[in-house]
Amino acid sequence: MAYLDHVERCNRRDMTQFRRFVVGGAGVGWVHHDTIAALASLHPALRIDADAVVLAPDDDTPAGRSAVLADVVERLVETGVLPRLRGELYAVKTAWAAPELLRIDRGAISVFGLNAYGVHMNGFVRKTDGSLHLWIGRRAPDKAVAPDKLDNIVAGGQPAGLSLFDNLLKEAAEEADIPAALAGRAVPVGAITYCCAGERGLKPDTLFCYDLELSEDFVPVNTDGELTGFTLWPAEDVLASVRDTDDFKFNVNLVILDFAIRHGLLTPDTEPDYEALVLGLRQAHP
Amino acid sequence: MAYLDHVERCNRRDMTQFRRFVVGGAGVGWVHHDTIAALASLHPALRIDADAVVLAPDDDTPAGRSAVLADVVERLVETGVLPRLRGELYAVKTAWAAPELLRIDRGAISVFGLNAYGVHMNGFVRKTDGSLHLWIGRRAPDKAVAPDKLDNIVAGGQPAGLSLFDNLLKEAAEEADIPAALAGRAVPVGAITYCCAGERGLKPDTLFCYDLELSEDFVPVNTDGELTGFTLWPAEDVLASVRDTDDFKFNVNLVILDFAIRHGLLTPDTEPDYEALVLGLRQAHP
Repeated sequence: MAYLDHVERCNRRDMTQFRRFVVGGAGVGWVHHDTIAALASLHPALRIDADAVVLAPDDDTPAGRSAVLADVVERLVETGVLPRLRGELYAVKTAWAAPELLRIDRGAISVFGLNAYGVHMNGFVRKTDGSLHLWIGRRAPDKAVAPDKLDNIVAGGQPAGLSLFDNLLKEAAEEADIPAALAGRAVPVGAITYCCAGERGLKPDTLFCYDLELSEDFVPVNTDGELTGFTLWPAEDVLASVRDTDDFKFNVNLVILDFAIRHGLLTPDTEPDYEALVLGLRQAHP
Repeated sequence: MAYLDHVERCNRRDMTQFRRFVVGGAGVGWVHHDTIAALASLHPALRIDADAVVLAPDDDTPAGRSAVLADVVERLVETGVLPRLRGELYAVKTAWAAPELLRIDRGAISVFGLNAYGVHMNGFVRKTDGSLHLWIGRRAPDKAVAPDKLDNIVAGGQPAGLSLFDNLLKEAAEEADIPAALAGRAVPVGAITYCCAGERGLKPDTLFCYDLELSEDFVPVNTDGELTGFTLWPAEDVLASVRDTDDFKFNVNLVILDFAIRHGLLTPDTEPDYEALVLGLRQAHP
């Protein structure tokens, strides 16, 4: 494999299979043709047009739209189109800083091809010889997504109603037992984007990335059962694993590549795909 | 102004005004319709097709192509289409790591809309209170491009036949008197791209960015007359100047915004354009 294969894989999709999902006059997502069949006649406020699936409730406000979609999502679970709800609400917007158009259960995000946001943190140690090491977590075997795969020290989806940084602090406490005073030193360092087709729809995701430098004596401990443990890896070995294996959760490869580029672990004089990686990690969503 | 205005300005162009420039079967640049008139009948190896300007010399090799374009460029200077040559050769490729298709004088890069590469270095100081400061240079009043504008501590176009890092060391010595042992600690941290129309054509540029942390006692000194001096600014003040003024050279605004994002000086919870900036700093060229 090459590093760039991970970027390509996270952006694999066939947009001819999807129809625009429109809320409040704005295209906010995409619905797969197979799902459109299941949506037809499911709810009078959900209109199937030739070129779009339009949410048009009488009460066309965030509350009214959220109520309709909650009904729709419940029916999708009943009919087996969706396996389950996640019990966590995500905000739907046209951009991160735009006003909320509605809220919807996290489990239904991809079926409507909505832009999901998340926070990922690179926990790193700079040894006395200057070499960088990364704390890598292993996901629990019972995770619905990417069981047993390797992960960042802290990562999580972005629920509605929380700032990104507060979410990072919450996830840092739950996933790695990092006290808020320490996690609060995390530095926002940018974002990566990708958009891939999945089993149940489309995933146009934006992951806000953070770096936290840790001292050699800090050891993360998982407290919520989502990870089975952590290992401190030389960054070079992490990169080799990203390049040569499929051991990391699909999108974590991209977060690590972004870290490697920002910290000079990849260089434009030696990595032939450097330019393509820099551009590929931040692609506009369809 | 907003930060995003600088990104927008660096990407302002009307592609209907340009025709593809094709070398060795690959679209490598763009020629403005006004220039096409000047190119017609200038050289038998330069063919004006309805949808492209095609360089097709009998000797269709890097050496053959370079020789033809050297003739063409000389004629463009004679006829006043180009103001002057720069006496420095740039390599033309389909991507940074791709083989060279030809070499051409730097002064003719935009007239053929060729992807130009450059290196820009952020020289920063982390004061004992943790605050970041940036060394900012002022360009000489006699510079052909952006006279008197503010600039990075070290920046330069990328001549053919030199590695990026060697070019950075060369520019660091010439522009800021930074010894190679010190400049060699510069860390490659990514790249930014933009593409704007200019007086004489199109500028699809890629700037490889480097960070160099400097101690408080280091003071840069210009040795080649391209800068009139340097000032160490609190990074917050640099950002305010980027946001509120037009004092920086157009593309340096983007390099500084990238620095600000990577170092957490802008945050996604507080900067409404954060997402648009992250994507806007790295746009695919047309």
